[in-house]
Amino acid sequence: MLGLMQNWPLLIHKIIDHAATQHGGREVVSRSVEGPIHRTTYRDIRQRALRCAKRLTQEGIRPGDRVATLAWNTWRHLESWYAITGMGAVYHTINPRLFPDQIAWIANHAEDRILMTDLTFVPLLEALADKLPTVRRYVVFTDAAHMPATKLKNAVAYEDWIAEADEDFRWIDCDENAAAGLCYTSGTTGNPKGVLYSHRSNVLHSMAMSAPDCLGLGARGVILPVVPLFHANSWSIAFSAPMSGAKLVMPGAKLDGASVYEMLESEQVQVTAGVPTVWLMLLQYMEKEGKRFSHLKRCVIGGSAAPRAMIEAFETVHGVEVFHAWGMTEMSPVGSIGSIKPGLAHLQGDALFDLKETQGFAPFTVEMRIDDDQGRPQPWDGKTFGRLKVKGPCVAGGYFRGEGGNILDANGFFDTGDIATIDENGYMRITDRAKDVIKSGGEWISSIDLENCAVAHPDVAEAAVIGVRHPKWDERPLLVVVPKEGRTIDGAALLAFMGERIARWQLPDDVQVVAEIPHTATGKINKLRLRDTFKDYTLPTI
Amino acid sequence: MLGLMQNWPLLIHKIIDHAATQHGGREVVSRSVEGPIHRTTYRDIRQRALRCAKRLTQEGIRPGDRVATLAWNTWRHLESWYAITGMGAVYHTINPRLFPDQIAWIANHAEDRILMTDLTFVPLLEALADKLPTVRRYVVFTDAAHMPATKLKNAVAYEDWIAEADEDFRWIDCDENAAAGLCYTSGTTGNPKGVLYSHRSNVLHSMAMSAPDCLGLGARGVILPVVPLFHANSWSIAFSAPMSGAKLVMPGAKLDGASVYEMLESEQVQVTAGVPTVWLMLLQYMEKEGKRFSHLKRCVIGGSAAPRAMIEAFETVHGVEVFHAWGMTEMSPVGSIGSIKPGLAHLQGDALFDLKETQGFAPFTVEMRIDDDQGRPQPWDGKTFGRLKVKGPCVAGGYFRGEGGNILDANGFFDTGDIATIDENGYMRITDRAKDVIKSGGEWISSIDLENCAVAHPDVAEAAVIGVRHPKWDERPLLVVVPKEGRTIDGAALLAFMGERIARWQLPDDVQVVAEIPHTATGKINKLRLRDTFKDYTLPTI
Repeated sequence: MLGLMQNWPLLIHKIIDHAATQHGGREVVSRSVEGPIHRTTYRDIRQRALRCAKRLTQEGIRPGDRVATLAWNTWRHLESWYAITGMGAVYHTINPRLFPDQIAWIANHAEDRILMTDLTFVPLLEALADKLPTVRRYVVFTDAAHMPATKLKNAVAYEDWIAEADEDFRWIDCDENAAAGLCYTSGTTGNPKGVLYSHRSNVLHSMAMSAPDCLGLGARGVILPVVPLFHANSWSIAFSAPMSGAKLVMPGAKLDGASVYEMLESEQVQVTAGVPTVWLMLLQYMEKEGKRFSHLKRCVIGGSAAPRAMIEAFETVHGVEVFHAWGMTEMSPVGSIGSIKPGLAHLQGDALFDLKETQGFAPFTVEMRIDDDQGRPQPWDGKTFGRLKVKGPCVAGGYFRGEGGNILDANGFFDTGDIATIDENGYMRITDRAKDVIKSGGEWISSIDLENCAVAHPDVAEAAVIGVRHPKWDERPLLVVVPKEGRTIDGAALLAFMGERIARWQLPDDVQVVAEIPHTATGKINKLRLRDTFKDYTLPTI
Repeated sequence: MLGLMQNWPLLIHKIIDHAATQHGGREVVSRSVEGPIHRTTYRDIRQRALRCAKRLTQEGIRPGDRVATLAWNTWRHLESWYAITGMGAVYHTINPRLFPDQIAWIANHAEDRILMTDLTFVPLLEALADKLPTVRRYVVFTDAAHMPATKLKNAVAYEDWIAEADEDFRWIDCDENAAAGLCYTSGTTGNPKGVLYSHRSNVLHSMAMSAPDCLGLGARGVILPVVPLFHANSWSIAFSAPMSGAKLVMPGAKLDGASVYEMLESEQVQVTAGVPTVWLMLLQYMEKEGKRFSHLKRCVIGGSAAPRAMIEAFETVHGVEVFHAWGMTEMSPVGSIGSIKPGLAHLQGDALFDLKETQGFAPFTVEMRIDDDQGRPQPWDGKTFGRLKVKGPCVAGGYFRGEGGNILDANGFFDTGDIATIDENGYMRITDRAKDVIKSGGEWISSIDLENCAVAHPDVAEAAVIGVRHPKWDERPLLVVVPKEGRTIDGAALLAFMGERIARWQLPDDVQVVAEIPHTATGKINKLRLRDTFKDYTLPTI
């Protein structure tokens, strides 16, 4: 027997409708790519999104078509999302930091029809345009006065282009499971894979994220997403801010410490969110200039693990509460966030920061488990490693065009590829990537923990740990180190140093000193190449 | 094209699963009907709900069957909801304050299979049992030691009954639109009508209610629902508290000022919710005893309009923020709630309380409009009256068994039967019931406003306003008054008094002094009977 409640599908445009109706005058403040600060409101964002949606329709875009955006966080980019989804198409966010070939690959895989971009990226796209045959038109987020001369196909300034349509447009009424957004993961192996969000998944994720233990966004909130819209839906903020009526502050192209600080202060921002790199720039700027926050209360840090020193600096120096979060493009993206549960509210000092170093706990709508290689659940004791698996309405069930095949296990969980512990209070800590963890005699050793321990030695500039075959233990860790300039490293002494900090059975079996460790384009250690370099290596202790 | 996110239906048992996993040790504290304070946790609530679900299955209950509860707010009542919905059946909450005949009518209309109740209501049910042929078994929320001798069919103590099953039970996996709960509205005319909630509507409503501008519930929250579970899902609290990990404090049968105060204090409650009647008792108790709150921060008042003096007492005397809310059984039930938008954050004193007297604004998931009789939208100016209509995923689309036929208008909106204004900031104020508003020459006059104005006169004990036919204006207001003991009322003087407070065109055309005004069983003015009394009356001024 079905209930008798109304059929009201969870569609993205209902968010901007709600914002325009209930919080119409609430500001959206952006640092424009052209330079000046720009101020608008949710009411105007909606009106212009309607215009843009109508213009997309006139352009021949149909429901399900992909419209790419390669752009900074500004009001125009925000409008484009509501326009694209509001007429049934799919926004495809492209990360400008990808290699040009990757950009071309995913734009072709997505079959993007229109590409909307910022002035910043026109040269990049001009160099790429020959490789983007599906793109019929380039729309540049600017006005006629700032529009550059360009040979990009049918290039037009966004302001001119939407001026060709009026606001007399009706949002599409569709299945809430219809595709709404597309974002590719930048896998280190194989081709990028597209995560195809639905209206439902984005709306539900934003409702979950508005809760007090996540973003805690109400109508009186002010939030600045440093995290880009192209970084997995800006962690829901493009939706959750208008949903709650919070003022939205957009940093545009300027993510340096001084620029971010200026906007946090001048717009009285209470909540912000971004990756560790930008916070490092911000904290360094503030320390150098002797600056303090006047309004900031909460800083969400995700994307990669927040260093403990960064968490401590925010909390103890600046009085800002850090919410350490973890997520994935496949998770819409937030999977866990580190607010403090009541049983731990007494923690202070090191004990508090130990907790804050974890990636927090899963909010409602996220189910989480850690399994061994046979899919057996592992205990939540804060020590036992397991493959981190997740389930929920905002978690991918498959990739675009079936890439990667069936990605769910027999229980319907998605394997994140991460290795994690979960403690008795539900706090999850990522300990390694599954492909990097060393499996030694049934026990798993974190390569990251060993690397962190090795670089604490004064002679070590960089360290990498890989697993090498072992006849008895299957795998044992090999430590590869680069000495600091002018230093030499004694392997035995280094292991002795590490032995004071790490259990004996986890210690690397050998140390190899090298001049250089290979890196990927994004600066991470390239363990694939490192393993290849040491493919003929045999352990001395066998 | 559909998105590729996981199929994870919004099912109620996922709430208690989440609570048990992430907030397993968080307390649920109840004043038991037997007397003592009882303490349990979400983990144990879930375990016992699994047991109860299995026991229901053994009893022959099938998905879609209705299981009635006629009970106070305690942990056992809470468990029963998760058990009933977790095995696919439908909880049907019965309000014990209804007339016995009404209870029998709705239990028969619902075809309740099992009735779960408290010790308090055993005598009531014994008197009614002959009229409840569909009920196969009565389960009393108590243990063997407290179980009374009763002739109720197959009566059993809840603790004995669930002890006959173990916890090895798997929640049902069903469509999120499946029926989950049933609650009848107590219409003043016609038979009660059943609102049939779905899993989806209850889960979405609870997600919306957890937001900072509604209940603002996080894991460190502590909430006491004075509002009963039988009063429209206890305004979502039975779901939103475990969803967020907040501690849940249940007042049991004792809703007097002293008992509620004691629990608010001893359990360090931060948020509470209930109808004006209980707050009146609480405030009177506190004034008399010179008590103060130590922890309470937020009080949600709904069910009927909160008197201004009550709002002022909470805010100015006790420093507790009042969230004035409005809702209906048909809305799951919350439709609007009065947090303060940023543009109004500067308001103080009378201006602030003017705002707090409104019923607040609609949260995301609720669409609201005010229409004239022809369905044309009226301006949001805080003055123009309109029929209040609502739309959303937690709003009824029809009544159980098709009672009332199609209840949605051409735009898919549900007509609440209320007359309201909405101001330019979205704040809604209920001004009258649609059947009571006086329609005079195209303008609508609030009977309630006139009554409130009349009773402010020192000689008036009670006042009622009804519309009477008028050849030119269609309807004009007639004021019916009861004088205070020992006083006499001069109609002209009373109208002159009112004329200083109310626009001339709204003033009643006549005053009739009577000895008594008829009331309904719940104490409201019976305007149906009053209109009947004055059906042959003609206005003097025609």
